[in-house]
Amino acid sequence: MAERLAIIGGDAAGMSAASQARRRDPELDIVAFERGPYTSYSACGIPYWLGREFEDAGRLIVRSAEKHRERGIDARIGHEVVAIDLDARRLTVVVDGAREVVEPFDRLVIATGAEAVAPPVPGADLVEPARTVDAAQRLDARIARGGHAVVVGAGYIGIEMAEAFVNRGLRVTLIEAAPQVMAGTLDADIARHVQEGAEAEGIDVRVGTPLEEVQHGADGRPCAVVAGGERIPAEHVVVATGVKPSVSLAREAGLEVGATGALVVDEGQRVPGFDGVYAAGDCVESLHRILRQPVNIQLGTHANRQGRVAGVNATGGALAFPGVLGTAVSRICAREVARTGLGEREARDAGLDVAAVCIEATTRARYFPGSGPIWVKLVVERATRRLLGGQIVGTEGAAKRVDVLATAIWTEMTIDDFEDLDLAYAPPVAPVFDPVLQAAGAAVRALD
Amino acid sequence: MAERLAIIGGDAAGMSAASQARRRDPELDIVAFERGPYTSYSACGIPYWLGREFEDAGRLIVRSAEKHRERGIDARIGHEVVAIDLDARRLTVVVDGAREVVEPFDRLVIATGAEAVAPPVPGADLVEPARTVDAAQRLDARIARGGHAVVVGAGYIGIEMAEAFVNRGLRVTLIEAAPQVMAGTLDADIARHVQEGAEAEGIDVRVGTPLEEVQHGADGRPCAVVAGGERIPAEHVVVATGVKPSVSLAREAGLEVGATGALVVDEGQRVPGFDGVYAAGDCVESLHRILRQPVNIQLGTHANRQGRVAGVNATGGALAFPGVLGTAVSRICAREVARTGLGEREARDAGLDVAAVCIEATTRARYFPGSGPIWVKLVVERATRRLLGGQIVGTEGAAKRVDVLATAIWTEMTIDDFEDLDLAYAPPVAPVFDPVLQAAGAAVRALD
Repeated sequence: MAERLAIIGGDAAGMSAASQARRRDPELDIVAFERGPYTSYSACGIPYWLGREFEDAGRLIVRSAEKHRERGIDARIGHEVVAIDLDARRLTVVVDGAREVVEPFDRLVIATGAEAVAPPVPGADLVEPARTVDAAQRLDARIARGGHAVVVGAGYIGIEMAEAFVNRGLRVTLIEAAPQVMAGTLDADIARHVQEGAEAEGIDVRVGTPLEEVQHGADGRPCAVVAGGERIPAEHVVVATGVKPSVSLAREAGLEVGATGALVVDEGQRVPGFDGVYAAGDCVESLHRILRQPVNIQLGTHANRQGRVAGVNATGGALAFPGVLGTAVSRICAREVARTGLGEREARDAGLDVAAVCIEATTRARYFPGSGPIWVKLVVERATRRLLGGQIVGTEGAAKRVDVLATAIWTEMTIDDFEDLDLAYAPPVAPVFDPVLQAAGAAVRALD
Repeated sequence: MAERLAIIGGDAAGMSAASQARRRDPELDIVAFERGPYTSYSACGIPYWLGREFEDAGRLIVRSAEKHRERGIDARIGHEVVAIDLDARRLTVVVDGAREVVEPFDRLVIATGAEAVAPPVPGADLVEPARTVDAAQRLDARIARGGHAVVVGAGYIGIEMAEAFVNRGLRVTLIEAAPQVMAGTLDADIARHVQEGAEAEGIDVRVGTPLEEVQHGADGRPCAVVAGGERIPAEHVVVATGVKPSVSLAREAGLEVGATGALVVDEGQRVPGFDGVYAAGDCVESLHRILRQPVNIQLGTHANRQGRVAGVNATGGALAFPGVLGTAVSRICAREVARTGLGEREARDAGLDVAAVCIEATTRARYFPGSGPIWVKLVVERATRRLLGGQIVGTEGAAKRVDVLATAIWTEMTIDDFEDLDLAYAPPVAPVFDPVLQAAGAAVRALD
């Protein structure tokens, strides 16, 4: 009988592992358990669908369970794994919230992802997170009625949600406990350009405004938030104050949870001490290439890649996950936002002696139609003159420049070498000296 | 009395040198001679102005002679240097095409640029090139009358001009002697996507069609071209079959011209054998960082940077120009086009054993509005697995990804390391695995 690879979690990491394993071993029995109704969906696309930048929510499903089955992966939706027995090599699975079955496995990939964390204030944990397609569909039906929405948390997701609601004609208040938007990803000096963009879309942004309570009406639905000492009535409340790795299932099975709160794995996505057991995606620690420490960053890019590594290694391969810089991008409120490596505050918190500069330039030649502002912030280590991080905010075409910074950081370039780079210029796509090079010049001057 | 720095040529390289020198030495007497009516103009923007993507030709002037004078640079338009006496340290200058004056100098920057080369067929050299703002203004007045235009040469400029004419309502035929468009910059397999884009705009593209003659009417204006055995009547003819470095003035003064036809300089833009003499921009040779040989590539980015180096070194500095990859980008006919490093044909011509792949992907998540096709070609050296070159064609947002390739080539990354890069993803700006990473994966498979 063929060996069996079981996968817990049917999204990016889990199904990437399944696909790689299928490709490499046609004989292997591969089963994937997904508790929700959809596999392989684009969670990153949810706010854009809610904002009706496209009509069909089905487009968010990159590959359905049926499509996976056509390719020889036994993908099962509505299957929630509730216990892992690593000695007996079997899973306890609740099917459709009702009957319980036991499923054996020989090899296992844990890809349980992350879950929303509500602030510890009354009523906040009663608000359903909109992190999955089905939850988004329920939210969508509600916001169709219009009204006033309060979004709690001004990170990527919170601002994207706020923009979506504006697009749908809602009045939107965005509250954030930190004194700036995107405190988890951007430094304050560049984050203010994101806040300006959000305000220009008509979003009432209130930073330094901690949530105190979410009040619910007789129908059980949120009817107001209390924040910063004020009660704000609202037809709709979304809490987007962050996520944490979903590790309780694995922890109960005896797996090690690191200081980041995520599962400990080696560079091959192997779970130390448990032969044939792998973990990948939002639920695991990854090596940060600059800090040389484990971090837990939830990004689809990392999840897909780690899933690949797990799938290859679960079928006899020897692939290594190379670590992360936390490179991320989003388009929010007509501004693009991106970051890679360390922020200035992060670098200082890590005890590094850095210089930081932030310049304003234009996305295209100044005279060219469609040219808009772009802000580039660079963080450079003083002693080594190495580029450690970059943040970009700007209009269309601005943010993917972060990939140039990510490549330079990955290869450990000094800022001096970076400034020498031969990058592309044409009036419709860039000024003669690309904004990232202008920022590098400013950084060199700041160091000298 | 203050020493005098003279500059021949008032565009990117020359005026960058002047600006750097001004900044570094407030006492220096700096004079710049420009034979045309404008300094510091964006030649790259001319086709877009002709196509009326913006109305005001004045926007092409980045900095006028007057503005330069306000900053302490004695910029003189209508001043053509006709002889350089390096022993006596003086220039012979014809002012406004009339009187001749002699101008002394202590230090000299030669930035004479490049000039159009017409094919050696009857009548071709009688067509005025549209390489300067004033020539473009004359062409602009003529095309306002409508009619049929024939553009000779399907390089960047030729296609950009053809697109401009279509935008202005002209009927356009684009003829090219080579069997593909953009033969000087792209390999044939990826260039065909540029040709498709041009044809989709309504341009009649005829490759493998060498020019045989340009016929002129009684008024002295072109009235037809003969090409590929056919006579094509035309109200307007543009010849854009390439340029060569303008070196005759320097050659007559005794400067060395290299095998590329451009002036020989060292890495500090110094002219060997002549103390205090520098050259920069389209008229000089540059070190190609992969070939480790001098090349002559006309790009505004290189010219600006070399001008800076010349200006710094002419004022006692010690800056080095780091060499080039020939990174270039353009937006033509709703497609963006870019290249860096070596093409497949170039690499093979240089005797390198390479593998090349070309993949098709999408600029954004497949489901996201505005997502369009992108083709990425990579050239990798087999023995070292180093990335040597990349070419990109695609819809909006596609081409600046070439900067990631340029950075990787600059830092001598292997394709294996490149595939590991942590690049940014969000549905509005990229698929989960960026097209350049998808291409890298294909290249790794091609090598293995």
